[in-house]
Amino acid sequence: MSRNLTIDAERLWSSIMTSAGIGKGSRGGLRRLALGDADREMRELFRAWALDSGYQVRVDELGSMFVRRQGREPALAPVLIGSHLDTQAAGGRFDGILGVLGGLEVLRTLDQAGIATRRPIEVVNWTNEEGARFLPPMMASLAFAGKESVDWVRARTDKDGATVGGELARIGFAGQEPVGGRPIDAYFELHIEQGPRLDAAKVPVGVVTGGFPTRGMRIEIRGETAHVGPTPMTRRRNALVGAAHVAVAVDEIGWRYSAGEGKTTAARLDLSPNLPGIISEAATLYCDMRHPEAPELEAMAAEVETAVADCARRSRCTIEIAERWGFGGLAFDAGPIALIRKAAADLGHAIMDLRSEAGHDAYHMAAVCPAAMIFTPCKDGISHNEDEDMTREDMVPGANVLLHAVLARADR
Amino acid sequence: MSRNLTIDAERLWSSIMTSAGIGKGSRGGLRRLALGDADREMRELFRAWALDSGYQVRVDELGSMFVRRQGREPALAPVLIGSHLDTQAAGGRFDGILGVLGGLEVLRTLDQAGIATRRPIEVVNWTNEEGARFLPPMMASLAFAGKESVDWVRARTDKDGATVGGELARIGFAGQEPVGGRPIDAYFELHIEQGPRLDAAKVPVGVVTGGFPTRGMRIEIRGETAHVGPTPMTRRRNALVGAAHVAVAVDEIGWRYSAGEGKTTAARLDLSPNLPGIISEAATLYCDMRHPEAPELEAMAAEVETAVADCARRSRCTIEIAERWGFGGLAFDAGPIALIRKAAADLGHAIMDLRSEAGHDAYHMAAVCPAAMIFTPCKDGISHNEDEDMTREDMVPGANVLLHAVLARADR
Repeated sequence: MSRNLTIDAERLWSSIMTSAGIGKGSRGGLRRLALGDADREMRELFRAWALDSGYQVRVDELGSMFVRRQGREPALAPVLIGSHLDTQAAGGRFDGILGVLGGLEVLRTLDQAGIATRRPIEVVNWTNEEGARFLPPMMASLAFAGKESVDWVRARTDKDGATVGGELARIGFAGQEPVGGRPIDAYFELHIEQGPRLDAAKVPVGVVTGGFPTRGMRIEIRGETAHVGPTPMTRRRNALVGAAHVAVAVDEIGWRYSAGEGKTTAARLDLSPNLPGIISEAATLYCDMRHPEAPELEAMAAEVETAVADCARRSRCTIEIAERWGFGGLAFDAGPIALIRKAAADLGHAIMDLRSEAGHDAYHMAAVCPAAMIFTPCKDGISHNEDEDMTREDMVPGANVLLHAVLARADR
Repeated sequence: MSRNLTIDAERLWSSIMTSAGIGKGSRGGLRRLALGDADREMRELFRAWALDSGYQVRVDELGSMFVRRQGREPALAPVLIGSHLDTQAAGGRFDGILGVLGGLEVLRTLDQAGIATRRPIEVVNWTNEEGARFLPPMMASLAFAGKESVDWVRARTDKDGATVGGELARIGFAGQEPVGGRPIDAYFELHIEQGPRLDAAKVPVGVVTGGFPTRGMRIEIRGETAHVGPTPMTRRRNALVGAAHVAVAVDEIGWRYSAGEGKTTAARLDLSPNLPGIISEAATLYCDMRHPEAPELEAMAAEVETAVADCARRSRCTIEIAERWGFGGLAFDAGPIALIRKAAADLGHAIMDLRSEAGHDAYHMAAVCPAAMIFTPCKDGISHNEDEDMTREDMVPGANVLLHAVLARADR
């Protein structure tokens, strides 16, 4: 490899800053919810950039956009680089965006250097990675990996009842390409760490070896409506109080496992009714648990199950864990990981092995082809927050590692 | 007085059951939110009934409806009977409705008996007593008593941004009569107890001597958004968890005072953002505290203030009691109370002295004129719930006490 082949940091930074102007949040970050008007504008810009550079752009039936730079042997399965251009409701400028625009920068760098690769290289912008508007997150790669049907995903609704399918049509990104079902040689994703370790250790490149085991629960609390005034304490079954007991218990379990990097989140609570004059009869609480060690995670989940019974007794509500799910806990493929390590070593960058604690489309792609991820530092580990930040210097090493790892794989 | 003069139980029950068909809830109760379409339909029916009986109907600038049966001396201040025809989002068939239609039944009974009273008698349907759609509750009587301006009330919004003024115009009940500012001789309100005591003791008539002292608080919790995955426990400031600690603490304070009939409610919680993938940065919790003894209520409120500091420490959030309010704690007037006691005694009904634990328009009217309330039993004390229930036998004694107390006052 040539250490002289590097991405154009100015061009990549500039494209990220242009993105940062589309769907601005109130505090300097982004509010670019999947399939909203700002997402449409960003998608149109991304398509225009790709077409201007002479790449082919295809949109699949779930709106995921594939930008293809042709290879010398066009019939070979492409190397895929991807991430997402949607954000949280009050998200940052880099989460996801770095991976998509970093991928575009890889293609442009190869053009500029006059390098033809054996395999095609594609850059994908996955629809709705964040799940901030439509659940579940990572729904487009989920369907790409054949784990859910296209129809199921298209029928998901936001809180106002709008469907994924309807919103895709509305913004003009209901494409014709089938979702998945074609060979992919390998998948690479460049992403900010969303945690503080690289930043704290001043290490520029994270080699993501896999994902933290993660468990989620939807907990249903059932109480009874009553007037807040006359109803004696002994007759109350306040679903809000039942949910509060569970949220506190879940948080305390996270603290008990925090020394081993365990964590828990009570992250969403829906109440009905939710009015000052009346006791709530129903609550839905979403909980998230993570731990690097699968057996510890099982123990945490078991503690939540035990705590729920105590919370039910204390609040006189019925509490049921209505749904349980999990993701992560997978190990990425040795092949792409080795290429990432080699690229970092050749470029002289220190690396740190990490497991991702967030969800990523790469998890689903790991079921389709060899997949791996590269992390860059992000300031203080802050993410899913408008204060999310990184410097140009934080960005460059990871992007160059992506370039060289993808180049090596595409010539394989 | 004549013990033979009684309301027509069949006619009153029938009018209440007709009302129970307008804005039916999903479980047999009512969903007749203030100034919604069902409220409009009920208002139109109430007006038609009043006009059919030959009464004058006036609507004030806040939509409160005054049905007047003329007195022998029309210039005298009227005796006012009132309550409300709006309900909670999942409310019962009697709360408020009994008082308005019971008032109409008093007028009809006097007609049927050919009784002319010295003073006019009016029956009022107060706009938005419940506060289920627009805050604050009891807003129309609040303005009638001159405690807030008409413009202020008209500008209140529901969660979708509709104003009281706009909705009054939409449903055709933005009346021309000034709000308040005229003499009222006395105010009587018949209401279900909304608590279990009369029902448990099998006592048919509650003499309401005043209101429970009540305190409310709006508590603001400020945390920080972050990704639920990578953010270590030690860096989290989850506003949902902060609010959950407060809700649990408030509930536990209620239990500690429950032997003395104290009670607390964590009754509404608004979160932002409220999404599964992200830690909440802001929460607003509404708390309500009641106790029959004012010093005990002060002690409860002080315990909440102390608990908030501990909750802030445990959740690493900033927690502030942003607003404090109170109502109740007043004593009703000896004059109307004596008339209620006398009517019950003359009719041979057992009575129990009670203080109201709910809010009522009578509290605001007590600032305008001598005011008092009569309670009827309600089944198991259940209210603000579609299961709210009472029998015809529960209804009759209280309605007859209302009739005779009002008649005595109107001839004074």
